[in-house]
Formats: sequence, structure tokens, C-alpha cells
Amino acid sequence: MHVPFLLNWYLNPYHAPLVVAQEMGFFEKYGIDLAIIEPTNPSDVTKIIGTGAIKLGLKAMVHCFAARARGYAIQSIATVLDEPPTGLISPLKQRIKHIADIQNKRIGYVGEFGKIMIDNLVQEAGFPINCYEAIRVGMDATQAILTGHVDAAIGIASFQQIELEAAGMPSYLMPIDEMAQLGCCCFCSIQVIAHDSFLQDNHQMIHRFLQALQQGLQVTKKDPEQAWKCLIATKPSLNRPVYQKIFQATHPYFSSDLKNVDRDWQKVKNYAQRLKITDAQLSLSECYTNRFFSPV
Amino acid sequence: MHVPFLLNWYLNPYHAPLVVAQEMGFFEKYGIDLAIIEPTNPSDVTKIIGTGAIKLGLKAMVHCFAARARGYAIQSIATVLDEPPTGLISPLKQRIKHIADIQNKRIGYVGEFGKIMIDNLVQEAGFPINCYEAIRVGMDATQAILTGHVDAAIGIASFQQIELEAAGMPSYLMPIDEMAQLGCCCFCSIQVIAHDSFLQDNHQMIHRFLQALQQGLQVTKKDPEQAWKCLIATKPSLNRPVYQKIFQATHPYFSSDLKNVDRDWQKVKNYAQRLKITDAQLSLSECYTNRFFSPV
Repeated sequence: MHVPFLLNWYLNPYHAPLVVAQEMGFFEKYGIDLAIIEPTNPSDVTKIIGTGAIKLGLKAMVHCFAARARGYAIQSIATVLDEPPTGLISPLKQRIKHIADIQNKRIGYVGEFGKIMIDNLVQEAGFPINCYEAIRVGMDATQAILTGHVDAAIGIASFQQIELEAAGMPSYLMPIDEMAQLGCCCFCSIQVIAHDSFLQDNHQMIHRFLQALQQGLQVTKKDPEQAWKCLIATKPSLNRPVYQKIFQATHPYFSSDLKNVDRDWQKVKNYAQRLKITDAQLSLSECYTNRFFSPV
Repeated sequence: MHVPFLLNWYLNPYHAPLVVAQEMGFFEKYGIDLAIIEPTNPSDVTKIIGTGAIKLGLKAMVHCFAARARGYAIQSIATVLDEPPTGLISPLKQRIKHIADIQNKRIGYVGEFGKIMIDNLVQEAGFPINCYEAIRVGMDATQAILTGHVDAAIGIASFQQIELEAAGMPSYLMPIDEMAQLGCCCFCSIQVIAHDSFLQDNHQMIHRFLQALQQGLQVTKKDPEQAWKCLIATKPSLNRPVYQKIFQATHPYFSSDLKNVDRDWQKVKNYAQRLKITDAQLSLSECYTNRFFSPV
């Protein structure tokens, strides 16, 4: 079966379990002809999968709530990356260590919901929303910080912070989960999402998809060298020391078994309500399911 | 209207007219919310558009015939890149200047049809198909040549040859069109392709899409500096001298008016028949149309 699969970001080391499963023929073994495609604008992903054009892909947990709230019939069927440390990253010289420090600063965010998160932090700290300037940077947080287009940007410690370090710019990460008192970076966990109609019609295939992905995950965890070879075979432009460091730094955050973690979903549901991107009516059973880990 | 658009290759300077139209808001002005996505494997594109998952995208002319022959209901509605000089690129020290020179060499090809083309050249020159080793390299011809994984690979003068030059490896391009006596590189012209069902239902929208793309093309041609800014704004990793050179070298090959050129389609039809990837039954009117340049 031919299955297009849309990544949440350009293909990078945190996609290793998927890339390993593709490169080592695990999907093929289960009869799945997976076509992995990349967005040029990460904000397009929810809509493309939500409208059912592409039926399977990746997206961060908090977006699953936003998608449902907008009527997009998508569900998370697995977790690939568990709680990667996410926050406001800034050059050390900017001294942005507390939410109060972002006053009069230019802050880069990926898409709509990043801005909502910062607005929320600012308001809960008692400052007006317009105390900072929000600048949409899409996938280019690192470049935007390096060129001085923004003073800080939302990013991941094991990704953008390492890119900055490699470019000779040591940085500080102000963790969003601490500021928002979440106790985990689960809002940013990377989920496998699928359109409801696809889930209804293809239980067996999706079960096999997850089996192949689990095998890709096992190789990634047990044999990082082999996983790295798969990554650079798929995308030779990753063959640079900075991406190798990102891969090493990402390694602890790969999910242990791909399963959705109920506690995380509960927390992010509360957070999404606080951010007013969803309401209490939404049932978690609409948002995620682990049923495809079983064959029937 | 939300319209996912699948590129034929990772986003690169030859996509400038599309990127300019996106970045300068021309699509938006015509009510089109275009989501540009990239393949990780260029061989997936025909199938993804051919099955109607994504309904609009780019692909080289020769693939349009192959797609139709396989029952994929796709048509070309415009030409973006006209006859980019395509051939077998090899380091000068390999001395691959005639088809006879590829005997006992490892030759890189993108996907299925590249191999068919080389096989055809070899056979027409009177050599057995197995006189050379074919190695599939996907989008990585340059890396494969640089690392010595292949001795030569199919590529474009204004793209892979410039990458090799920038990496300090001067190269020779043996033009496929000359060897195959085509008189033009039109088989490799980059077309806008769409699924038939999409064309039937959305004439007005597709007409507006082409108007926006024509405006992007005009800016690209008249104001290359502005087009370059759009390219690096969309994809900051292109902001390197090598890609700027590729953009300059590509500039003469942008189509003048986006229209399909009948002579090219005739030639490539004959070529596709010679390659046995299509038969004489196929009508050119199934393969391309210029009717969407008119409003009705």
C-alpha cells in the first residue's frame, strides 16, 4: 500500500526511527510503500493532514488539541519524541533568563501557537501582550537568532541550541514548561497523527506501520551508529558534525515504546485550555489512541 | 482555497517563480493558500500526485508520459523550467566523454527512468546493458560523485555541475540530448502537473494559480535580486554562494511565459516511445494543456 507521510519539520535527526524503518526496509517488509515528504512551512501540516489530503504524519502534541478544536478530524496514534526540552533560546549576552526580560525584545516563534504560548506567559506574569514584539520565523529560529533578526526564539535544547553553539554563539534556554508550571515538555512531544477516516479503514495496515516504526526505534536506540548511517543515506546534507551532535543530544528523548502517555495528554489538555485553544468539552479519547498497537 | 503543492525535488533556486509568488503574496491575492511541500525521494512524486493524494505539483516532462502510461491521470498545465542542460556528469579525471566511456563504470541515476535512458543510449551504441553498473542515487548525485560512490551521474549543468565546481571538482557533462539526438533537453523540462479530477473541478482557481505564478516568473526574470531574497527567506539554508551561482546559472532556463511548448512534447513523445515507456496510442492532448491560461 502506497502511503504518503508528511513530516512536521524538515527531515532531521529526531526523525531517526522513521528514517531507519524506511532505509532498512521495515515498512516494505510489512507491505507499506511509505513516501516521506517534508513541509516548507510547518504551519501547513495540520491543515494538510486535517483535510485528509495526506492522511499520516507528525505534529507536536499541543497542535493535536488545536487541530481538534478547529474541526480537523485527526488523532495521535503514537509518540516518537518524548518531551524534548523546549524554551525561549537567546544568546547569553541578551540576558533573557526570566519572562520579565523579554520586555522590548523581538521574540521569534514558529507558528500561531508559539505566539499564544508566549502571550500567555507574559500575561500570567502580569505584563501586557504588546510588551514584546512577536516575529514569525517558521523553521528558521537559529538563523533568525544568528543574524540578529530576533533577540530570542522558541526552540529545542537538543536542536536549535546545538546549532547556535556550533555557529559559535553560546545560548541560554528559558524552559517554557517551568514558566508554565507544566513539569514536563510534553506539549512539544512529537506525535504520529492520522486522519480519522484513514484510521477507520486501515487498522491492520496501521498496526503494521507501528510495528515497523517500533523496529526502527529499537535500531535507533540500540545501534545509534547504524541509525546515523540511515539518516545520512536518506539526506546526505545531514552529514555534518552539528547534525551528529543533534542526533546524540536527541537520543535520550526518543520514546521507549512509541505509546501515547496518558499523563502527558492530561497535562497538555489542561494547558491547551489555559491557552484557550480548546475547551473542557473535548474528550481525550478523540485526541489520541493506543489501539493500533494491537492487531485488532 | 487550501492547495498542497508537491515539488519534484528539494526546494532549490529553480523553483524561484513559485517561491516568489508565494513569498510576495501573489497566490494569497488570488485566494490561494498554497502549502509547498518537498519529497525526500523524487521517485515518489508521480505516485503521490497520480493517486490524487496531492493534486498539484512539479515533475519533468518525460515522467508525464511514464505516468500516463501507468494509468495515473495527470496532465501538465504549464512549464516552469525550459530545457535545462542535462547529461552524464563526471569528474574530468574520469574522461567520460562518449557513451563508450561508461563501460565498467558506476553510473548514478535519480530514479527508474534515468536508468532506462542510459540503458537505451548504451544499447543504441551497440553495447550490452550490463557493460556498466547502475546505482540509484536519488537527489544525491553530487555527493555520490564527490565521495566516489559513482564515477558519473545524471545531473543538470546549472545545478549539480555547479555544486561539484564549488566543492573543487571540475567536471564534464556529456549531454543526453545530443547522444539521443533530441536536439533539446526538453525531456527534462520541469512541468506543473495536476490530477485530472482537480482540473475538471477547479478551472477558475487553476487559472488564478497560473496568473500568480506568471507574476512570480516576471519578478524572477526582471528582478533576480528580489527573487533571490524570496528564495533565502523561504529557505535560509540556500543562503550560500553555491546556491546563488546555481540561481544565476538557472536564470536563462526559466520559461518565458509558462506555456507548454508543443514541439517539445512531440519530441519527448517520440523519445518516450523509443524508451518503450509509452506507446503510439497515447494522445498528446492527454498529456498537456494550455487551456488554463484562459479564464474559461
